[in-house]
Amino acid sequence: MTLTRRTMAKGLALGAAAGLSTLSHADSESRWEAQADGGIPSESSWGEVFPGVWMATIGIPEWFTPVSSRLVPVQTEAFAKLPKVGAAPLPAVRGKRTSRGCVVRLPLRANEQVYGLGLQFLSFSQRGKKKVVRVNADPKLDTGDSHAPVPFYVTTEGIGILIDTARYAAFYIGDARPRPTHPVESVNSANPDPNYAHDAQDGDLGQITVEVPHAGGVDVYLFGGPEMLDAVRRYNVFSGGGVAPPEWGLGFWYRVDAGGTQQSALALAKEFRERKMPCDVIGLEPGWQTHAYSCTFAWNRDRFPDPAGFVRSAQAMNLKVNLWEHSFTHPASGLFSAIEAHSGDYGVWGGLVPDFAGEPARAEFGAYHAKAFLDAGVSGFKLDECDNSDYTGGWSFPECSAFPSGVDGEQMHNVFGLRYQMAIWNEYRKRGLPTFNLVRSSGALAAPYPFVLYSDLYGHRDFIRALVNSGFSGLLWCPEVRDAVSEEDLIRRLQSVVFSPLAMINGWYIKNPPWKQLNRKLNNADQLLDGWERLEARCREIIGWRMQLVPYLAAAFERYANDGTPPFRALVLDNPKQKELYAVDDQFMVGDRMMVAPLFAGEPSRKVVFPDGEWHDFWTGEAVGGGKERTMTASFEKIPVYVKSGSIVPWADTGLFALAPETRRISALVYGDGSIPFVLAAGSEELRLSWSHGQGHQEGTNGYEVYAWRKIG
Amino acid sequence: MTLTRRTMAKGLALGAAAGLSTLSHADSESRWEAQADGGIPSESSWGEVFPGVWMATIGIPEWFTPVSSRLVPVQTEAFAKLPKVGAAPLPAVRGKRTSRGCVVRLPLRANEQVYGLGLQFLSFSQRGKKKVVRVNADPKLDTGDSHAPVPFYVTTEGIGILIDTARYAAFYIGDARPRPTHPVESVNSANPDPNYAHDAQDGDLGQITVEVPHAGGVDVYLFGGPEMLDAVRRYNVFSGGGVAPPEWGLGFWYRVDAGGTQQSALALAKEFRERKMPCDVIGLEPGWQTHAYSCTFAWNRDRFPDPAGFVRSAQAMNLKVNLWEHSFTHPASGLFSAIEAHSGDYGVWGGLVPDFAGEPARAEFGAYHAKAFLDAGVSGFKLDECDNSDYTGGWSFPECSAFPSGVDGEQMHNVFGLRYQMAIWNEYRKRGLPTFNLVRSSGALAAPYPFVLYSDLYGHRDFIRALVNSGFSGLLWCPEVRDAVSEEDLIRRLQSVVFSPLAMINGWYIKNPPWKQLNRKLNNADQLLDGWERLEARCREIIGWRMQLVPYLAAAFERYANDGTPPFRALVLDNPKQKELYAVDDQFMVGDRMMVAPLFAGEPSRKVVFPDGEWHDFWTGEAVGGGKERTMTASFEKIPVYVKSGSIVPWADTGLFALAPETRRISALVYGDGSIPFVLAAGSEELRLSWSHGQGHQEGTNGYEVYAWRKIG
Repeated sequence: MTLTRRTMAKGLALGAAAGLSTLSHADSESRWEAQADGGIPSESSWGEVFPGVWMATIGIPEWFTPVSSRLVPVQTEAFAKLPKVGAAPLPAVRGKRTSRGCVVRLPLRANEQVYGLGLQFLSFSQRGKKKVVRVNADPKLDTGDSHAPVPFYVTTEGIGILIDTARYAAFYIGDARPRPTHPVESVNSANPDPNYAHDAQDGDLGQITVEVPHAGGVDVYLFGGPEMLDAVRRYNVFSGGGVAPPEWGLGFWYRVDAGGTQQSALALAKEFRERKMPCDVIGLEPGWQTHAYSCTFAWNRDRFPDPAGFVRSAQAMNLKVNLWEHSFTHPASGLFSAIEAHSGDYGVWGGLVPDFAGEPARAEFGAYHAKAFLDAGVSGFKLDECDNSDYTGGWSFPECSAFPSGVDGEQMHNVFGLRYQMAIWNEYRKRGLPTFNLVRSSGALAAPYPFVLYSDLYGHRDFIRALVNSGFSGLLWCPEVRDAVSEEDLIRRLQSVVFSPLAMINGWYIKNPPWKQLNRKLNNADQLLDGWERLEARCREIIGWRMQLVPYLAAAFERYANDGTPPFRALVLDNPKQKELYAVDDQFMVGDRMMVAPLFAGEPSRKVVFPDGEWHDFWTGEAVGGGKERTMTASFEKIPVYVKSGSIVPWADTGLFALAPETRRISALVYGDGSIPFVLAAGSEELRLSWSHGQGHQEGTNGYEVYAWRKIG
Repeated sequence: MTLTRRTMAKGLALGAAAGLSTLSHADSESRWEAQADGGIPSESSWGEVFPGVWMATIGIPEWFTPVSSRLVPVQTEAFAKLPKVGAAPLPAVRGKRTSRGCVVRLPLRANEQVYGLGLQFLSFSQRGKKKVVRVNADPKLDTGDSHAPVPFYVTTEGIGILIDTARYAAFYIGDARPRPTHPVESVNSANPDPNYAHDAQDGDLGQITVEVPHAGGVDVYLFGGPEMLDAVRRYNVFSGGGVAPPEWGLGFWYRVDAGGTQQSALALAKEFRERKMPCDVIGLEPGWQTHAYSCTFAWNRDRFPDPAGFVRSAQAMNLKVNLWEHSFTHPASGLFSAIEAHSGDYGVWGGLVPDFAGEPARAEFGAYHAKAFLDAGVSGFKLDECDNSDYTGGWSFPECSAFPSGVDGEQMHNVFGLRYQMAIWNEYRKRGLPTFNLVRSSGALAAPYPFVLYSDLYGHRDFIRALVNSGFSGLLWCPEVRDAVSEEDLIRRLQSVVFSPLAMINGWYIKNPPWKQLNRKLNNADQLLDGWERLEARCREIIGWRMQLVPYLAAAFERYANDGTPPFRALVLDNPKQKELYAVDDQFMVGDRMMVAPLFAGEPSRKVVFPDGEWHDFWTGEAVGGGKERTMTASFEKIPVYVKSGSIVPWADTGLFALAPETRRISALVYGDGSIPFVLAAGSEELRLSWSHGQGHQEGTNGYEVYAWRKIG
């Protein structure tokens, strides 16, 4: 045992001398004495930093956090549009510093439900769970891992909490309990945990414990409601406000075969136009570059001999061009030398990792892209592999990486996606160019960024759950269509994606569109389905819905930009008192009046839970009631969509692209008494549709012409 | 942006004033300047601490580590039995302190293969992977999570490395690479990563990077070989030496229905004896207590009205009694008040979490068990739920827990299993009582502990992989049989478990033994299989093999206790130069001459890879060659087992329990030229069997009588 004592003595003595953060036992006891009731010694009061937004600080926060390093200012003027909240709706926050970092404890009320934490794929209601907000492209277990974890949650009591950290924080959401404090005489099976009350009435309200590793302290932001949706709005406004994408971003996107050429891409685009298949954006996959992975960011001239001509040809067909890339920079890239000094100490796939936490790497990366691509008319990018993919080896930089900006690999993983977005977005901003993009990672304060998340995962149900969760945390999510196990699967997935923030088929591994041949091998061998034209027609109709929906979507996004109201969101957000909605993770609101309940392959009917109030079938106008659960069927032709009674919904003609004149010619669909006017206010322009005395009224145009009023339910 | 600047300024200023471990950018740059080649500024030379064992220190280690808190001394005298190693076989270790903890970097040689890191279920050869040694009962992804992670690895170059930490350390095993350093003119598809050499000849040897979070430094222990198996032996000797269980521990175990009673347990035991079914240990599951989960550690008198009588009745049938429990202490337990002051600040299932890192909790917990159970004749325990089970919520204490001993929840998770084992084992030690136990978590330096790991997982292949991996890290593993999808599955699992450290059927949810009825529902309804006696007979024979194997196993374990040679181990450990064995994770050595290649349900044949040299079929004696891969079939009756040519294998008569006289009556099986003598040396006694001139020789008896020599191959 000699060794034991020697090592222990050494550790203690040196530890004390060096003033280590790793506390010895004595330090620990004197400074943070563990109390029998699990109590925590330090408290911090809330200070109001914006209307309805408070901050409290535990310990000494790190210098680098999502808020401290934010690149978009708070949308200060928008707070005036939100309800006033008199006082902080929570008591002072409690916390302590520990040997591992710091801990924050926040109260929960009886039956208070908790949602959020970013793009969670595998669960919805979070009370009773432990979640670590760790960036991971492949969340296969419900541990909190996500492409886009966000240390923000919102509760049915109208409380929003942001733990301002770029660490992999652990949230114990009502499941970690203080130790029992008193013995009992005997076992009582009716009360198995005699030290805890199991009944909401008697005050066992639980708590949320958040552990932030490696941080000596943390700022906590509290977003008041009074309603749950207001708390989310306030978080989005604090984030800088929601994004309003260009209309072409709301049209239809198609990503072409990664093995194709300039010629094949343009041929497919031409086919789309000839066969009246709507399309706004053509996306190129890795094959356009001379090398990936890692990236050279240089056109492969064998495949794309005339990039400028390619972009011009696409533009001539009213198509935008979007380019796939990831950020790891190959030694043969023209960008390599410029960012060499602004990169991390590890390489990925033989390439540099740009230090996007710092201005220099963003500036060099952006300038290169501006010169090479923006100035040539490229409308946006798909930023891949920025999400710590394949956590178990080799696909990203380690957490122990060091970057010249001073952040480490863990912090960098948490901000990498968003800072990478800024490197690109900023160049469009500076030029006043509209842009809308795809990205595989995001994080806190993401609402203003013109980027939509996607993923290599593919479960249809998980995709819908991610969409439902995205609205809690200022994120946008694209449940893209890649392949399908059956015609039904293709149709159901396509029906979902056209009711999402970004409607896209990603055909990166098929030469022909999926409606021509579902089987990948046969598709690439040009062996098309018999009668593929019929399936094409079905897809054309569904993609057509997307084009018809553009004015409605534009209004929902304008509202997002205006007061932070998420355009796609869970039902509970609008109805936090309705318990039947607390677990509904497969239905979602689009805007303020439309509710979508997707069908999944093999399930011709499904249960739909209706919020309180009257609802109508969107397609038929049939009144379906509200406030309860019903089993609804839908034909192969339709996805179940419902609208609030009283709604007016603008429904455009079907253009081949969003900026086509058809998009501006709308029918106004009127459900019930038509008492809920539709408003699309963009900038100083406004379009207002209302219904009274059996007649529709258009105020303002914003470029739109209502050629028909249809009272359909 | 006002808020941004204010927050940043505050963070920096306060951070500097308080001397935080969280480095600001400036600190970071000056102290640990990131070098272009990924170089690391600090080095530590190896100092020899035991023969062939070196230590190097990076930074200032934590006061609490597996070595600093060890409870079993180094088996110093055993080093003399291992080969001498002249100098440390690695250059000085490099490392640095970081904002997250510390990092250690160790070299890899070309084609050097890496194994270990504890009880890994999902992978074997670790080069190219990232593994975090985190305690988790349900490792469903190959991330390093394990019931028994160990920060120790061993390589085919005869290098063993222990990172002495109780943290969730991350091992990047050859997959994290420094960033590229120079641009190239153009893409060269033949050399996609122009900054890295891809060929072993030109020196791109890779490295292992280990990140230890929350620690300002770490001690690294290097165990020399010269051979791979010697490095493992040295680690086990350093751990305190391998365990030699009592013979009854090597017999057969059966755990009875958790819903049963004193009467039903004894009735089953009586049936075993009457039907000649071998059994050494009867295990009781949760139902024996008045309350679980959490535990009262008190007999449920409704079910067990006379515990002392129960134990005596079992003993009268030569059966040991083993009790299930977990450590979380219910308020109605007689132990509650005694350990209240020695418990963590969080509760689990309404019970206290004993602070097993400290002596007081271990002493109180042990004393209570001694008085209540040891003194009544209980032979051992099954320590459940000590492995951070169900990581995602509520089944264990959080990592941010604080314990009176000064350790936090993360450190506690890493040592909880082993310290819990000591709380129990120490009472047996003090009394000179033999014991052998089950446990669901373990860690570093576990070799001396009389505990075998088990798990709630159940994949047969994963169970075998865990067994193969266990021998790298001083662990023992029981691939227990619970249920089976078919008769074949039952037979194949039983055939595996009798060739493992602990042979057990865990019938905790079935009233009748599985051979009477495989279907759980029918089993519990006493609806037995037609002709179950035939299946019983098959199982009786297989369990009989276990009893016949006891002398051979005893010798393998004696060797473990003597010089640290793991009794169950991967083939690569004995043959580190044979590349064909590098990926063999479904065959294992038992002792020094027997190799088992289990069959899995649905697979009547399998590929078997043979180490160099001549091998024989154990059952038939047939010579099967060696040094290559062959497809072998086995009948439903037999599991493929092979022995080295020259082997002498003692094969006992079949006793109904290990201490029965039959176990001491052995046939000596002789394969090939019989040139490899068999030695069982226990204490001062020795049994030595050798073969020369066509005749067998017995030297010493150790209580054994050889009544037959059988030259069978």
